[in-house]
Amino acid sequence: MRDRTLSVQPMTKYLALSIAAPVLLLVTPVSAASPLETLRDKALDADEVAYDIVEGLTTEIGPRQAGTEAEARARTWSVAKLKALGFNNVRIEEYQMPTWVRGEETAEVVAPFPQKLAVTALGNSGSTGEVGLEAEIVFFPTLDALRAVPDGSLNGKIAFVSHAMKRTQDGSSYGAFGPARFVGPNIAAKKGASAIVIRSAGTDYHRNPHTGNTNFDAGVTPIPAGALSIPDAENLERMLARGKPVRMKLKLTPQNIGVQTSGNVLAEVKGSNPKLPMIVIACHLDSWDLGTGAIDDAAGCGIIAAAAKHLQSMGQPKRTVRLLWAGAEEVGIWGGKDYGAKHADEAHAMAMESDFGAGKIWAVDFKLPDSAKELKAKIISALAPLGVVPRQQPAGGGADIAAIITAQKLGIIDLQQDGTRYFDLHHTPDDTLDKVDKAELRQNVAAWVATLALVANYEGELKPEPAI
Amino acid sequence: MRDRTLSVQPMTKYLALSIAAPVLLLVTPVSAASPLETLRDKALDADEVAYDIVEGLTTEIGPRQAGTEAEARARTWSVAKLKALGFNNVRIEEYQMPTWVRGEETAEVVAPFPQKLAVTALGNSGSTGEVGLEAEIVFFPTLDALRAVPDGSLNGKIAFVSHAMKRTQDGSSYGAFGPARFVGPNIAAKKGASAIVIRSAGTDYHRNPHTGNTNFDAGVTPIPAGALSIPDAENLERMLARGKPVRMKLKLTPQNIGVQTSGNVLAEVKGSNPKLPMIVIACHLDSWDLGTGAIDDAAGCGIIAAAAKHLQSMGQPKRTVRLLWAGAEEVGIWGGKDYGAKHADEAHAMAMESDFGAGKIWAVDFKLPDSAKELKAKIISALAPLGVVPRQQPAGGGADIAAIITAQKLGIIDLQQDGTRYFDLHHTPDDTLDKVDKAELRQNVAAWVATLALVANYEGELKPEPAI
Repeated sequence: MRDRTLSVQPMTKYLALSIAAPVLLLVTPVSAASPLETLRDKALDADEVAYDIVEGLTTEIGPRQAGTEAEARARTWSVAKLKALGFNNVRIEEYQMPTWVRGEETAEVVAPFPQKLAVTALGNSGSTGEVGLEAEIVFFPTLDALRAVPDGSLNGKIAFVSHAMKRTQDGSSYGAFGPARFVGPNIAAKKGASAIVIRSAGTDYHRNPHTGNTNFDAGVTPIPAGALSIPDAENLERMLARGKPVRMKLKLTPQNIGVQTSGNVLAEVKGSNPKLPMIVIACHLDSWDLGTGAIDDAAGCGIIAAAAKHLQSMGQPKRTVRLLWAGAEEVGIWGGKDYGAKHADEAHAMAMESDFGAGKIWAVDFKLPDSAKELKAKIISALAPLGVVPRQQPAGGGADIAAIITAQKLGIIDLQQDGTRYFDLHHTPDDTLDKVDKAELRQNVAAWVATLALVANYEGELKPEPAI
Repeated sequence: MRDRTLSVQPMTKYLALSIAAPVLLLVTPVSAASPLETLRDKALDADEVAYDIVEGLTTEIGPRQAGTEAEARARTWSVAKLKALGFNNVRIEEYQMPTWVRGEETAEVVAPFPQKLAVTALGNSGSTGEVGLEAEIVFFPTLDALRAVPDGSLNGKIAFVSHAMKRTQDGSSYGAFGPARFVGPNIAAKKGASAIVIRSAGTDYHRNPHTGNTNFDAGVTPIPAGALSIPDAENLERMLARGKPVRMKLKLTPQNIGVQTSGNVLAEVKGSNPKLPMIVIACHLDSWDLGTGAIDDAAGCGIIAAAAKHLQSMGQPKRTVRLLWAGAEEVGIWGGKDYGAKHADEAHAMAMESDFGAGKIWAVDFKLPDSAKELKAKIISALAPLGVVPRQQPAGGGADIAAIITAQKLGIIDLQQDGTRYFDLHHTPDDTLDKVDKAELRQNVAAWVATLALVANYEGELKPEPAI
């Protein structure tokens, strides 16, 4: 471990050392960095490509909601940027998708303690209409408590589902508490509620509610569904704890604007051996409308493009590496599904995705064949100096590569990002450039380029066997 | 110092120690705490009064903008609370004042990089009207840069004044950077600007702009004046740095709703010696409308009421201590001025104010006569175990006690709160209960009660001589 830690030092540091302390060098010879180590450490010390992409997308485009003209502008911007970076075969692949857009959104407690609350509509929320809706709140401390009440028991009420989502490094608390958003509105609608407000699926204490899609079953009429900021949800809980009926006036006026155009942006680093199946690396270009989509997911697009750009500087890799900047991830993974359908007849070997912010990579997971044991060992060695540890659990991929992984039973490597602060910002107005730490972003690029350089030059099988 | 540090330990800890380690106690005798030390340390360990007031005001009333029905509800709430706490002579003193209220507020960059920006109107802002206003941005990196341009040079433009406000423990950066808000709009109006947006006078990175009053000279027609959140101001700066003209559409529709009723809430701890002039201690009950006014200034009202309540538990003090929960501080210190005018013929000796959040007390400043040297020394001794240091600068008081201080040349003690995080929250939607740290709030109460117990029982002169 110590030798490896030493070998990650960039050559410039050794040169400085050799001037300052030549005697030490004589008694402690240090081997020269390998090309892979040099590539990784240059990215770690000096990458500007990833930040430049995040800065550009957030400044020149801003929010990029799927199906809107802003997402279309983002595609045009992306084609120009990826061409300027020297990638091959840069193009847009369009598809059509139904589109929901936000309207006005206000919430206020009418009695017994009148005050406004910060609310935002969830994607696919129904509308209260212009006049809004006033009703009594029925409180559920958990989603399970909502599940437990009889059908019809919420007629004419606004359900309020709270929870206690906590920070976790791997972000897995989203799986535990996210369902309040994912399925809470559908359950409340089936039980007769006029509307629902949930405590935002987030971990911050700012008056910026977290949006995100919710889904209603076929045949269930969408009810107005909003998320309160966490300070507001706690305030509402305190009001309810005083024991008097609490009445809320809610106004959410989103609209379904019909089928609109969205699209993926693709680009490639062309491999030298056309017989080797390619590696696809993905992020998503669309964002929610409230923030500027810096960490979700301009950062991912910056990371994968920077890694692919630096990979080119080593010379042509053996395998083609394809970049997928997917559209419409947030609202139903339309881009990832479209890619899977349109590219099912092209040979892929492996897929990777970056869609968990700009925090440091802390772990690596694999789903590769046993025959790739040496490759895995090399990747683990190359990542260890970055503070990245292997875990004993299989890689799962990500939303935008799920369709192609399933279609072709691909190998997967997940570079797991630190998600401790991710749900402070996720789907909020606060997802802005200032939240990106340049040093952490560079560590991501370094981990990605080291991994990519190894897999893109690996000629063995990458699909797990037996196919799972 | 060590003895003093020891003596701050509450008796319960010594009792626990005496059971666990009686031998140690035999060789290390500890003097009993004085009644003042016991009072202070009980507040430090266990005060619930201050938090209860902040919790109640933010939950049951919420925002309390001056001149609105919410501020009136807050007065009614406060009378009930102060009576329940056992204070004497609890009453409301009303006055009239002109009232400005917020309307709709939106800002968006129209070209070359269309996106919405988070904006809020400054108090006394003019209105754009319902249709809004679209114009080119003229950028000023500082207020001085705005001051430097010729009259008429901003005709038909929107001025954008940025700055680089930094955190400071004493909050003094508000004095350096606040003028962008206090006088920037007036200057821009005089130079012909159609409107102005400023970078919020704040230190956070959330999409919650900081409001606050601005003032226009007599004869200057108020222009629409908004504050951008800091992430938005930096985004706008990045757009401008690309060199193309930037056009903004701004909609701010505040209104002046004429003269309304506001008021102060007063209460007293009656002193035993009616010949001794009283001590007045102040906070403000009104808040800005965006947050729930937890740190600005429910915390101050909680702190002074808790201190006065605990003071009563020592028996009747020699001097009367009057609580002033002032109205309408944020919009022109109407309550403090009204108090000064209505109570000019009552004998006051000294004034103190708590209006800088819920952070710990870190320093104490005095403005007392030389004859009060021993009193000062006692206060310094009583505060040292709380981590409070004396400074070599005169106390200045606060907004709500300024009028009575000036009228009667009062003595002043300032218990200075740590303002490092204060301007993250000040005048934003994020000023909510969750930002209050209970332990820090209790340290405030402890410092206040120790100081109050000493001054309220001091029979010597408290007004500085010669009167300054």
